[in-house]
Amino acid sequence: MKKVGVVDTTFALVDMAEYAVRALKARGTGFKVLRATVPGIKDLPVACRRLFLEGADLCLALGMPGKAEYDKTCAHEASLGLLYASVLEAKPIVECFVFEGEASGAKELHSLARRRAEEHALNAYALLFRPQELARHAGTGLRQGFADAGAVRPTR
Amino acid sequence: MKKVGVVDTTFALVDMAEYAVRALKARGTGFKVLRATVPGIKDLPVACRRLFLEGADLCLALGMPGKAEYDKTCAHEASLGLLYASVLEAKPIVECFVFEGEASGAKELHSLARRRAEEHALNAYALLFRPQELARHAGTGLRQGFADAGAVRPTR
Amino acid sequence: MKKVGVVDTTFALVDMAEYAVRALKARGTGFKVLRATVPGIKDLPVACRRLFLEGADLCLALGMPGKAEYDKTCAHEASLGLLYASVLEAKPIVECFVFEGEASGAKELHSLARRRAEEHALNAYALLFRPQELARHAGTGLRQGFADAGAVRPTR
Amino acid sequence: MKKVGVVDTTFALVDMAEYAVRALKARGTGFKVLRATVPGIKDLPVACRRLFLEGADLCLALGMPGKAEYDKTCAHEASLGLLYASVLEAKPIVECFVFEGEASGAKELHSLARRRAEEHALNAYALLFRPQELARHAGTGLRQGFADAGAVRPTR
Amino acid sequence: MKKVGVVDTTFALVDMAEYAVRALKARGTGFKVLRATVPGIKDLPVACRRLFLEGADLCLALGMPGKAEYDKTCAHEASLGLLYASVLEAKPIVECFVFEGEASGAKELHSLARRRAEEHALNAYALLFRPQELARHAGTGLRQGFADAGAVRPTR
Repeated sequence: MKKVGVVDTTFALVDMAEYAVRALKARGTGFKVLRATVPGIKDLPVACRRLFLEGADLCLALGMPGKAEYDKTCAHEASLGLLYASVLEAKPIVECFVFEGEASGAKELHSLARRRAEEHALNAYALLFRPQELARHAGTGLRQGFADAGAVRPTR
Repeated sequence: MKKVGVVDTTFALVDMAEYAVRALKARGTGFKVLRATVPGIKDLPVACRRLFLEGADLCLALGMPGKAEYDKTCAHEASLGLLYASVLEAKPIVECFVFEGEASGAKELHSLARRRAEEHALNAYALLFRPQELARHAGTGLRQGFADAGAVRPTR
Repeated sequence: MKKVGVVDTTFALVDMAEYAVRALKARGTGFKVLRATVPGIKDLPVACRRLFLEGADLCLALGMPGKAEYDKTCAHEASLGLLYASVLEAKPIVECFVFEGEASGAKELHSLARRRAEEHALNAYALLFRPQELARHAGTGLRQGFADAGAVRPTR
Repeated sequence: MKKVGVVDTTFALVDMAEYAVRALKARGTGFKVLRATVPGIKDLPVACRRLFLEGADLCLALGMPGKAEYDKTCAHEASLGLLYASVLEAKPIVECFVFEGEASGAKELHSLARRRAEEHALNAYALLFRPQELARHAGTGLRQGFADAGAVRPTR
Repeated sequence: MKKVGVVDTTFALVDMAEYAVRALKARGTGFKVLRATVPGIKDLPVACRRLFLEGADLCLALGMPGKAEYDKTCAHEASLGLLYASVLEAKPIVECFVFEGEASGAKELHSLARRRAEEHALNAYALLFRPQELARHAGTGLRQGFADAGAVRPTR
């Protein structure tokens, strides 16, 4: 049975993991969820690697960087760490970050975080169980959390 | 028989892989294409490494970062991940990124993406099968997607 | 018995390690502290790796970058080094940096550094001994050194 | 017999490798040149690693980033990749980059590229065969492609 | 007997290694100095790794980036390379960089470079032979090349 690691933070303002796990389970079966919660986004890479060493086939890394310039730096560092852990283990890490500044107001932020977590959970599912679905949508401008951009046609 | 990995994203607005694979096959034979599609450009590095572990001798990584400042950061992170995967495996990854902001309008973007994908596919082919062709064009100002810059001569 | 590495610098203006170790010991028992002091924040990553090789299960890396633009660059480099060491060893490094510019005045800086060191020490403890406590606070907007941000609710 | 890898790009506007190899051969004997040409500067790191695996003792990596902001990002990424490959293999990579924007006009660019390629080739030679020559010039403000800066004296 | 690697560049305007080695030898005995000189700061990381492979227990990496924006990028890349080499080998690299722009005028630059090289040499000595000295100065605001900042007290 496949194992999906789901890692999130106590820093985030929304419990994105809850929505992600629900979306995963609503999407299909045949996998087990391994959960971990860490303080902040820079703690995600090692947590993912540890879940890989415990048998995870893929990790979903959920985080919500703050609004300050320094938070962007932290997100950049975390992303590089996630890339390093992922390539090192040769297993996918689906990064799902929602920047506080992306939404205006608490309600919109919650809604964005929920939707992006759900849609990245579906991406994670597809990577593990339905790679042909991703292939079918190659170059079609999919987005997570916002409306899809759609494909650009040569005749437009 | 050589194996060429071709990895693209569902985020991109153009199906660059289709053009790349066609260009590869029009150029020559004696290779097999391994395909993978991932959600976004930051998922490319691990996908390339996984194709290397499945036997790919080279990977072509196709992506289309958006227009926002954050998309540039993501592209930078993805590039570093591709460099890491490539050096780690000691196998070439030909990065082919088209930034949305490089073109004005959908038609031009499509045309640029197609041409760049095709020309990078030819680069990939040359790296694997015709290294002497690359050597013959050393320092001659070749470009992909735009007109070549041409060599600078000492007397100009 | 678990081992907690605590690494700090002679560059910092506050003895954060003292507060961190006190907070650790006040929180619980069943662990041994391994201490190291290095000149500056860029010396922290290798010091952490060395403590891991001596048996540490987790490291707390304490530092205080200065106010200049260059200090931010150094902090960024140090953070990437900490991420690298942590993922490489598959053991957590809790980074606790206080930027001089975060506080106005010596008293406030001292207070911030102390509080953040203590709260990150509690995070370190939780990571090692009480992971379920972190899980319980997933997505609740915890902060270290400042007041917690709190969770955002869908109905607000 | 020592082996010197010389890697350049089809992107560059000047055939720097030609000048570098000539300078190497004019400087001394007892080495063999291993050549590779890749499309762009980001392809240099893996090409160097591959030459190391073929026996190169040192690589000279020649490239010419364009004028745009994005070209600087690419150069930065390429440099990090070269550093990674070099440290990983524990063998020197002499990076010789000429930015288009460093010269005004084609003639000056050609002249700068030639001179820098030649001078970095001599550095490569010294690293392999005459380390004591480098030691003799420690802290003397040597430059490649431009006039040397010279040492700063305590009494000036 | 311990071995201290000391690596510097021909690019620097001051022979910092001379001052560093003198300071090391004035401080104590029981170690051997391994010397290497490379062209520029980006050549330092692999040189350190090579000295580690020759038995160095610690390396002192001395460099002097120029005044231009690009020099800062090079210093950043070199620093990341030094961090990578250091963590990889699990041995300390004491980075001692003096930026040309830090001093106004040649005399001040020379004096700053000398003092910083000497003080970092003492740090290197302490890391190897007197770790308890560093521990005694934890969080006391030590600086290298400039006056110490001193510790911040809770009551000030």
